[in-house]
Amino acid sequence: MSYATSILRADPRGRNLGDRLALAECIEACLECSQACTACAEACLSESSVSDLRDCIRVALDCADVSGATAKVVSRHSRYDANLRRALLAACRAACALAAESCEAHAERYAHCRVCADACRRCEAACTRLLESL
Amino acid sequence: MSYATSILRADPRGRNLGDRLALAECIEACLECSQACTACAEACLSESSVSDLRDCIRVALDCADVSGATAKVVSRHSRYDANLRRALLAACRAACALAAESCEAHAERYAHCRVCADACRRCEAACTRLLESL
Amino acid sequence: MSYATSILRADPRGRNLGDRLALAECIEACLECSQACTACAEACLSESSVSDLRDCIRVALDCADVSGATAKVVSRHSRYDANLRRALLAACRAACALAAESCEAHAERYAHCRVCADACRRCEAACTRLLESL
Amino acid sequence: MSYATSILRADPRGRNLGDRLALAECIEACLECSQACTACAEACLSESSVSDLRDCIRVALDCADVSGATAKVVSRHSRYDANLRRALLAACRAACALAAESCEAHAERYAHCRVCADACRRCEAACTRLLESL
Repeated sequence: MSYATSILRADPRGRNLGDRLALAECIEACLECSQACTACAEACLSESSVSDLRDCIRVALDCADVSGATAKVVSRHSRYDANLRRALLAACRAACALAAESCEAHAERYAHCRVCADACRRCEAACTRLLESL
Repeated sequence: MSYATSILRADPRGRNLGDRLALAECIEACLECSQACTACAEACLSESSVSDLRDCIRVALDCADVSGATAKVVSRHSRYDANLRRALLAACRAACALAAESCEAHAERYAHCRVCADACRRCEAACTRLLESL
Repeated sequence: MSYATSILRADPRGRNLGDRLALAECIEACLECSQACTACAEACLSESSVSDLRDCIRVALDCADVSGATAKVVSRHSRYDANLRRALLAACRAACALAAESCEAHAERYAHCRVCADACRRCEAACTRLLESL
Repeated sequence: MSYATSILRADPRGRNLGDRLALAECIEACLECSQACTACAEACLSESSVSDLRDCIRVALDCADVSGATAKVVSRHSRYDANLRRALLAACRAACALAAESCEAHAERYAHCRVCADACRRCEAACTRLLESL
């Protein structure tokens, strides 16, 4: 059991969460996506073709910031406001989709883009599931 | 002139920005709001009535995270995606409104909540102006 | 294989890293620690004894910020500066030790503190291993 | 008076702080440095000579993360641990010095690097003053 799930179980307000599984999956997917985007931007900066990868680096940095903030806000699940959560999950989904599209365009050439696209698509799906459970 | 404005002026893609003023104001308002929320949560934790301030602390922490991420994404202004920017500014506006409402309810009693509410309302307005310029 | 490890393997400068295992472990431990601290602070805010948990909340928030920043900086591994990395890993280790000590003092009573202390101790150890490999 | 100073004055534990001025200056310098580094990395990505600016982008991103986390931790000033604060201020000072050196090397050519170097040097000095007051 992950730390995220364990703490949700031990939280005085987490025990009765209907969507605890969707919540834990979203938190973990956001964290992994944020790190993958940070690492993929770093790897893109090391490629000899860096000048072709500028926009890929930008969307990766954006997605790292948005998914990182989403992991934090979603971890604060007690008495959450549905409007804020919905807007932030929508923003995170948009950031993931952009980063994934950009990395998929380079996935044949760069394995780090292939891995990063996977992490972004997984996060996009987890945000969608949590959005649908609201 | 602030650092934010100076760097926008010096950016090869920032020179022709129509909404440069709205952009610089939004960046600075997000930064100040993020810090005010972090500091107000810290001050609330020191109040003897902390148990009445739990939700005020939560919304302040949420707003600190969302406005902090918004400052970063909005600073990456080249070739930005309008959908992502719109969704994130909407999330930031929602987070600011929640934190401001919560702090306004305690503004008579706690000067730190009064100041934090000001910073949140200013950020909410700056996000609205940037949204309208898109 | 984790996303962090996969991207390190695919990074043009990551292939020859002697300490790639220590690096990937440190990145993952920092991410999990950061999330555990965010979630534990949230759970502490929900406890009826919140006024006894103020300092536990503070050190958890500090540790979430420092381990989150450390995960990012350590992910940017190319041509890193040893002084910065050493100082930041030392700060992260200090933040983890403080949060762990505080949570361990409440571990009998609060399962979320027990889990968070584990995540912090694991991160402290991973930072130590990476420091020793420099 | 800035929001940071106003909230420190209103904080129940902030009223008697000997080093309140050094604290408020450090918080504000960290925020401005973090934003300047984010914006300078963005501007560097837009330069035609981006491949010569890779390491400048990396140190700017590192400095943005470290100074951002430092602003948060230093804002949580009650019962702070001197070891953690010292280690983190040392890390921030190192990150600022690296980013400043890198930007100073390009300051003649790129005005954004000149502005960013200023913000980093100011933050380095503010961290040093706060360190000396501990």
